Amino acid sequence: MESEFIGWLRERLPSHPRLLLGLGDDAAVLRMSHNCVVTSDLLTEGVDFYLAECDPRRIGRKALAVNLSDLAAMGAKPVAAVVALALPRSGALELAKQLYEGLLPLADQFDTAIAGGDTNTWDGPLVISVTALGEPTERGVLTRSGAKPGDRVLVTGSLGGSILGRHFDFTPRIAEALLLQERYRLHSATDISDGLSLDLSHICEESGCGAELDLEAIPIHDDATRLAEQRGDGVTPLAHALSDGEDFELILAVPPEETERLLREKPLATPLTCIGEFVQHAGLWTRDAHGAVTPLTPRGYRHE
Amino acid sequence: MESEFIGWLRERLPSHPRLLLGLGDDAAVLRMSHNCVVTSDLLTEGVDFYLAECDPRRIGRKALAVNLSDLAAMGAKPVAAVVALALPRSGALELAKQLYEGLLPLADQFDTAIAGGDTNTWDGPLVISVTALGEPTERGVLTRSGAKPGDRVLVTGSLGGSILGRHFDFTPRIAEALLLQERYRLHSATDISDGLSLDLSHICEESGCGAELDLEAIPIHDDATRLAEQRGDGVTPLAHALSDGEDFELILAVPPEETERLLREKPLATPLTCIGEFVQHAGLWTRDAHGAVTPLTPRGYRHE
Repeated sequence: MESEFIGWLRERLPSHPRLLLGLGDDAAVLRMSHNCVVTSDLLTEGVDFYLAECDPRRIGRKALAVNLSDLAAMGAKPVAAVVALALPRSGALELAKQLYEGLLPLADQFDTAIAGGDTNTWDGPLVISVTALGEPTERGVLTRSGAKPGDRVLVTGSLGGSILGRHFDFTPRIAEALLLQERYRLHSATDISDGLSLDLSHICEESGCGAELDLEAIPIHDDATRLAEQRGDGVTPLAHALSDGEDFELILAVPPEETERLLREKPLATPLTCIGEFVQHAGLWTRDAHGAVTPLTPRGYRHE
Repeated sequence: MESEFIGWLRERLPSHPRLLLGLGDDAAVLRMSHNCVVTSDLLTEGVDFYLAECDPRRIGRKALAVNLSDLAAMGAKPVAAVVALALPRSGALELAKQLYEGLLPLADQFDTAIAGGDTNTWDGPLVISVTALGEPTERGVLTRSGAKPGDRVLVTGSLGGSILGRHFDFTPRIAEALLLQERYRLHSATDISDGLSLDLSHICEESGCGAELDLEAIPIHDDATRLAEQRGDGVTPLAHALSDGEDFELILAVPPEETERLLREKPLATPLTCIGEFVQHAGLWTRDAHGAVTPLTPRGYRHE
């Protein structure tokens, strides 16, 4: 299977100026200029997708997209990705092709070279592991540890209910992150993979501060409203926006004067909303219209 | 599980001058000087190991070692590795720790930073996917496509029967590859993962030439002899040396005068043996003491 698949893939893969040596050797060789930003995400049947219910192209696309979202959160430019597959034996070749058919257009869209990988069959369910390599811009990388009390909490897009489909078909915020990182002074960033409140608490922990949220300002996605209606379980659209995972939007820590400039200039097609402020005291808090502050428990997808 | 595991791993991971930003962010940042050599290997339960029969430390070690062997085959210096795991839910934390306990000493031995990864649990069997990053030396990389007719075929070590244990506990030929690459003019290299004859045929295909082997010169490992005795199935020790996979020794293409110098100077502690010659006509051939040439079918581990 593997040699036949590699033959197919060699035909399909476009040449890429970064890829000095591609498939067909013991390793690939990439042109890199200085530092390398590297991230890895592995998706499994039954946790991240059900093959019986989902077009493999969407799974392949998502496996790359979640990695590109991590590079976006670092403010890094994508360079290349490596794809390792464990395929169920039955129909393995067709499945491998479909995964790549979903993945390749996204790689092309974000100018990401596919630097080979490893293709295996086995008696288990589908596993797809992607490692993405990127490069910092001249402004360096955005980490989770740079938020300072007084910085504003900004988010891209609107949140909640991604499970209705956006968790597969989201666009990683690469273009937005690079533009913001180039034109504005950002202190910190992460992407929303586990849920707004939980990912924000990660920034707070790594930065040694807390955050107060203005709940009324949180941009709630229509999907969150639809999901709350469909389920009728009393979980509000706001609760979905605060705790649903896989929005793959960005959370940013931005100094106040820079926030003003950002909200005035509106440089993105995507909405950018100020939803609160980083504060000295640890923990997450909500602040109502009268300035009353109450603790907020971070909720979201906890990795078992 | 994942956050507890990351806490454990943060304590265990030594700092590394290449690792500008390690665990705890959306991605790691590595100091790289110019080009990046990247390779990935994924190991699965039931194909590469049986967890019930094998100490997880050996599995973790092997998952990194096979990647380092690929870097050795490229003549590249290891820089970092990224580890993605799909762990069976029951006992996941303990298993993750044991895998790393096997992997970390090897990373340390070859000065390889662990640049994070992804740790997941699921209802399936163990999958471990490692991506290794390296850097070319000043001499550039060794590819599979550089062999020229007249070059000698050299191998490190001795071959066959690795399934008796060496397929787990081999030492990747990093030190040997870097020393040879620095001091001698090598044309091509690969590592023996699928079997001597099959991996040699890959060099021939990529280089557009063939190779004649002197069967009497092939260094046969004691394990190949033991395996042939144990199995008593008529497969000779030589056949094992020619076709068993996972020796993880190097096959090199070296110009004749450089081969003479190498064999005279013996720069390695590991044996280095000339076993034949690359030739103009395609295919693999054996040459007997009288110069008679007969075709040799490449055999080894064919990836399904």
